[in-house]
Amino acid sequence: MATKTLAAWALALQFSNLTQPVTDMAVKSIYNWAGCAIGGYSLPPASVAYEALSSVLPYHSGNVSVLGSRAWMDIQTAALVNGIASHVDDYDDTHADTPIHPSRPVASALLAVTEWNFPVSGQDFLTAFVAGVEAECKLGVAVYPEHYDVGWHITSTTGSVGAAVAVGKLLGLSLEHLQHAISIAAVQVNGMHESFGTDTKPFHVGRAAQSGLLSALLAQNGYGGSLQGLEAERGWAHVVSTRENLTAEFSTLGETWELSKNTFKPFPCDRIIHAAIDGCVQIHDQAVHNRLDLGTIKNVTARTNPMVLFLTDNPEPRRKASPAQFTDEMVRNTTVVKLRANVHITADEGISEHEAFYVHIEHALGSIENPLSTQQLKDKFIEHAGSVIGKQRAEKAFRAFSQIANTSDVGSISRKFRK
Amino acid sequence: MATKTLAAWALALQFSNLTQPVTDMAVKSIYNWAGCAIGGYSLPPASVAYEALSSVLPYHSGNVSVLGSRAWMDIQTAALVNGIASHVDDYDDTHADTPIHPSRPVASALLAVTEWNFPVSGQDFLTAFVAGVEAECKLGVAVYPEHYDVGWHITSTTGSVGAAVAVGKLLGLSLEHLQHAISIAAVQVNGMHESFGTDTKPFHVGRAAQSGLLSALLAQNGYGGSLQGLEAERGWAHVVSTRENLTAEFSTLGETWELSKNTFKPFPCDRIIHAAIDGCVQIHDQAVHNRLDLGTIKNVTARTNPMVLFLTDNPEPRRKASPAQFTDEMVRNTTVVKLRANVHITADEGISEHEAFYVHIEHALGSIENPLSTQQLKDKFIEHAGSVIGKQRAEKAFRAFSQIANTSDVGSISRKFRK
Repeated sequence: MATKTLAAWALALQFSNLTQPVTDMAVKSIYNWAGCAIGGYSLPPASVAYEALSSVLPYHSGNVSVLGSRAWMDIQTAALVNGIASHVDDYDDTHADTPIHPSRPVASALLAVTEWNFPVSGQDFLTAFVAGVEAECKLGVAVYPEHYDVGWHITSTTGSVGAAVAVGKLLGLSLEHLQHAISIAAVQVNGMHESFGTDTKPFHVGRAAQSGLLSALLAQNGYGGSLQGLEAERGWAHVVSTRENLTAEFSTLGETWELSKNTFKPFPCDRIIHAAIDGCVQIHDQAVHNRLDLGTIKNVTARTNPMVLFLTDNPEPRRKASPAQFTDEMVRNTTVVKLRANVHITADEGISEHEAFYVHIEHALGSIENPLSTQQLKDKFIEHAGSVIGKQRAEKAFRAFSQIANTSDVGSISRKFRK
Repeated sequence: MATKTLAAWALALQFSNLTQPVTDMAVKSIYNWAGCAIGGYSLPPASVAYEALSSVLPYHSGNVSVLGSRAWMDIQTAALVNGIASHVDDYDDTHADTPIHPSRPVASALLAVTEWNFPVSGQDFLTAFVAGVEAECKLGVAVYPEHYDVGWHITSTTGSVGAAVAVGKLLGLSLEHLQHAISIAAVQVNGMHESFGTDTKPFHVGRAAQSGLLSALLAQNGYGGSLQGLEAERGWAHVVSTRENLTAEFSTLGETWELSKNTFKPFPCDRIIHAAIDGCVQIHDQAVHNRLDLGTIKNVTARTNPMVLFLTDNPEPRRKASPAQFTDEMVRNTTVVKLRANVHITADEGISEHEAFYVHIEHALGSIENPLSTQQLKDKFIEHAGSVIGKQRAEKAFRAFSQIANTSDVGSISRKFRK
């Protein structure tokens, strides 16, 4: 029943069912995603993917924006490239109960639809977005951590289903068609940990967005699939995980909102290293305050949860992530290289995954206990998107996305803030 | 080393390295695949997918053929739709050591490339095809049956890698780029058993073809990935299977040819039920020979391996597979329905998966011990493809595909035999 339960709930969801905190978080999630996608296009993975794909197409434009660029594309390619761009900086949002970055696949698929099947009102967009995010996060909670621990990239493996639910709802599929869409999306499982640190990591997200979108389009046209693709004996949950708890998790749909557990990153990298960075920033600020020369630092010792080392320990990084501090240039800066040689990180099971000492950071900035303020989110958007479309237009774009609930045509926002 | 070993072997492979039996089997596999794709387009899944996709594209033509139709498409959509069409009848080829249908994803991706990046000679096409098939089958053997038993559709889960190897070789990627292509393909795992019996089963194949093609295109343009996506601790083999034997299997590349274990189906359905059908056909022939009225049959009892029942037991089929005998009409024919009520199948562990009694069929027609003759393969092609493009053109198409080794432009064959 899980597939049917999810589909029926998603179709029944109305904007008026959303609580104010859920709507507020949806708006924040969407503009935070948009800032990442606009800013992210300036890095190679998104533009290389765009170039590779446009070189094999019989046309060189379409009717859907590739955010942060001057390109137009067909709906499927735009979903793929926007999905890649939105995650290339690792600067997006994170669900507190799983390592899912909920907005990426869902918003990447949905926004593409708003420029093809328009006008889509802001309220319809927000409702579909919430349905998609709840779907992927409930699915994630139902198989986490077993599914993640074996090596799946849980954002993209749940993301194709989330995107299918969101797009399917926006397109007004029937119950049976939405079940088909969910099941078609469920057989497309994208993303493994081995890609972390390569261009393929953001590809997972783009492909998940595109997979969900494709599934909804096929189902809309009558393409058939299982009616129980998520829960069947040889369907999604049992194939990709040694444990599943779909029935229990889906029974809380519309009661426990997963979106209310969303958090935003203050640094462009995986959440798991934020506490350590936050600690370093605080030490740096104290050092500057006390007029210490950073060149005199002899040794940096950090103790973190072992998972931090598993995911990030790379004493000689060759490639970066994004904004200024994460560029290749900064990674190779000689002062930084020298200091890096004196950094020692030790794993300590007694420390939770999101803490870091010296300055002991119990709740890193951007955690659910210590969230970014609206002003910080705005600053983040303007700095990041502004680096691509200019500060003034970034300010206008921020205003437009933060007022998304009041617009009658979401697609017009993307069109207004192209590069 | 597995990813590098595979990539290096594939790039080094020359047409002159192929033994005559391997070349012969490659040619048969390709024309058998082409007949299935041309004939398969007439069934809903392929044409519904085409309609769904073309409705969202900003153009309505491309430069690549959709086999069995009058449509032109971009390279990626053609690979998807041709892949769906080639498997919709379940009438294709099967690797004897696994349930992999090797040609589907590999040929669907490769043929699309020959109309975009032409001319591709028949010898280059055959060499790339063999590289792709060896890649997917070795990969399959390395994780079979554990990977299959959990519910993955092994044709498509290995097929995206096979397609990436084939296309990457045809495009002349460097060693490192082909490793990237393999790793990008490896994170796109498509297909689960729960879809069997629905339109989504052939979708697995089309999406795998498209995934492999996309991976090779991205890598060609410099899109990065892991260098060890297959064997890494959190890469393909460990994530999708509880057992893997990649190193041993890849050490036999170019020595034990998996393609030489390919078989062709005489009936449009899974190989596992062929012995039972073969038995029924023989009983039918005896009955006709003895002038028995088929309406007088009171009871049909079959004993088969339990796996046959798991995969096919459906006393009230609602949808079909393909050619005449498998149409919806035939499924609902009242004589057939009446007889069906008197069919009893019992599971018997003592009977192997490919045997059936009364007439005891030890090796079903089309098995590796009792293969279809070249004449039977030709008849199959002409009946199937002829139902779409006419008998005369099907005969010409058969001649062209069976002479593929001598052509200087493979893409011209598909263009010649459109609907």
